[in-house]
Amino acid sequence: MKVSVPATSANLGPGFDCLGLAISMKNQVIIRPSKFHSVSLKGEGANNPALKDNNMFISIFNDFYHNLSYKKRHFRFEFQNEIPLSRGLGSSSAVIVSAIASAYAIEGIKLEKDKLLNLALAYESHPDNITPAVMGGFNVACVQENEVRYIRKEIPKSLKAVVVVPNRAISTQLSRKTLPFKYSKEDTVFNISHSSLLTAAFMAEDWEMLKHASYDQVHQKYRMKQMPELFDVQKTSLKEGALMSTLSGSGSTLFSMSYADDSKNLEKALKLKFPHFKVFVADFDNSGVRVEI
Amino acid sequence: MKVSVPATSANLGPGFDCLGLAISMKNQVIIRPSKFHSVSLKGEGANNPALKDNNMFISIFNDFYHNLSYKKRHFRFEFQNEIPLSRGLGSSSAVIVSAIASAYAIEGIKLEKDKLLNLALAYESHPDNITPAVMGGFNVACVQENEVRYIRKEIPKSLKAVVVVPNRAISTQLSRKTLPFKYSKEDTVFNISHSSLLTAAFMAEDWEMLKHASYDQVHQKYRMKQMPELFDVQKTSLKEGALMSTLSGSGSTLFSMSYADDSKNLEKALKLKFPHFKVFVADFDNSGVRVEI
Repeated sequence: MKVSVPATSANLGPGFDCLGLAISMKNQVIIRPSKFHSVSLKGEGANNPALKDNNMFISIFNDFYHNLSYKKRHFRFEFQNEIPLSRGLGSSSAVIVSAIASAYAIEGIKLEKDKLLNLALAYESHPDNITPAVMGGFNVACVQENEVRYIRKEIPKSLKAVVVVPNRAISTQLSRKTLPFKYSKEDTVFNISHSSLLTAAFMAEDWEMLKHASYDQVHQKYRMKQMPELFDVQKTSLKEGALMSTLSGSGSTLFSMSYADDSKNLEKALKLKFPHFKVFVADFDNSGVRVEI
Repeated sequence: MKVSVPATSANLGPGFDCLGLAISMKNQVIIRPSKFHSVSLKGEGANNPALKDNNMFISIFNDFYHNLSYKKRHFRFEFQNEIPLSRGLGSSSAVIVSAIASAYAIEGIKLEKDKLLNLALAYESHPDNITPAVMGGFNVACVQENEVRYIRKEIPKSLKAVVVVPNRAISTQLSRKTLPFKYSKEDTVFNISHSSLLTAAFMAEDWEMLKHASYDQVHQKYRMKQMPELFDVQKTSLKEGALMSTLSGSGSTLFSMSYADDSKNLEKALKLKFPHFKVFVADFDNSGVRVEI
């Protein structure tokens, strides 16, 4: 049985804790019944042997598996991870979503995506990574009465993600601590209006509007201070053809979106200026989590 | 020459200062060259003779007319107003938009709607009433670098506005003063996410989603305290079939949206419970300002 989940970029510009989208890089796990428990890990995280023993995937998988099954079986888990760890590209959400989906799939129990999404909410209280991880595409999500409410829109092939992954992380916890407790009415209205306009731009496929709607006053400037080079990455991206350029999750990745035709130039300019960071072009993912039995 | 502008409901729920829509009630003015300046006023405001002499329309009209024309001409202005005054239904925006449109039209100068919108911004700093007044339909708008950026969506005939107009006004100035200077991160995120989801619901015509997305933490509860009966109007509306029920502008009108099939029942229930308020069903307007020469 094979489960794969895409990378996600959340907190999109003004869309703090609500706007996210899925990028075509995936974490994949193959699970087979086996005489003994065993784990293999390739790709991102492979150089950290602690991840094999203290593995969030296996812990969440076991939570669900033991609830769903009376049998005591052992499995071999083969992980192949493309999503960088702790860089704001949704690696935790991918683990949560794939672990829950795997536990149901291995027991042959059909799990609707809407139910999977709400089960994942128990492990991650903000819905902006888990929703695109499950659904693919662009998503606007909020939690209303303990349930994720979302609207999804596919992203066409004519757009590309241009991703800059720094060589170090920003601590999510520390990152959240740098945010103010209170916001002025002006900043609040700024983000309400820009996030709404950004949402409409995705829904209407009005890509030029991203240039006006993707600005934020609520989280990016506070978090990016921890790695001031990111301001320069953002500025360079917008100057070199990005339609929008936003901190991915709580960082440290900077996510840009551009027309496919502009993406190679943008990638080249960023690689030249930031040679110590990983820069690449990726498609968007419109499928979300995939289970193959 | 005849110019008409629809009523508008802005500050839609979480969409403080950015979401608005147009309702099929209009203020209309007929302007004819005449030997003497004269004004007639029918409908809303007709019982207030001061409006004839101290008329915002004529003042704005003159500002533009004197800039556009070398001729000194007199006009007869015949106003026929359906939009209640000072009730949060965009009567000021209607005046601003129709006055500017009239000055250009009477001189035979074509005025693009986008330019009209940005001229109106000089008289009203928030774009959420003037944008639907000019464009019609549902609009998400924000001001970015002194220009209104907006995305518009038509509202289908299968939906109706159910409007409750109280027998007294809430002062807009006082209403704005009751708002806090600062908002908590939780309230800020609540409105960013709900306003974005509400926008997506209009764009995707996912009307059931209005029931989850239309809540607000930023302005309604503060303003409605000035007329506590409005909480009951809102509660009754949602119980009796409204998809959403929000303070219109800064009040005192309560705007609800429902399926056309449910609108008559909703109107009946509201009339029965609030006999001293004006309650009516209206279509949405998808045309915005109209000029007939």
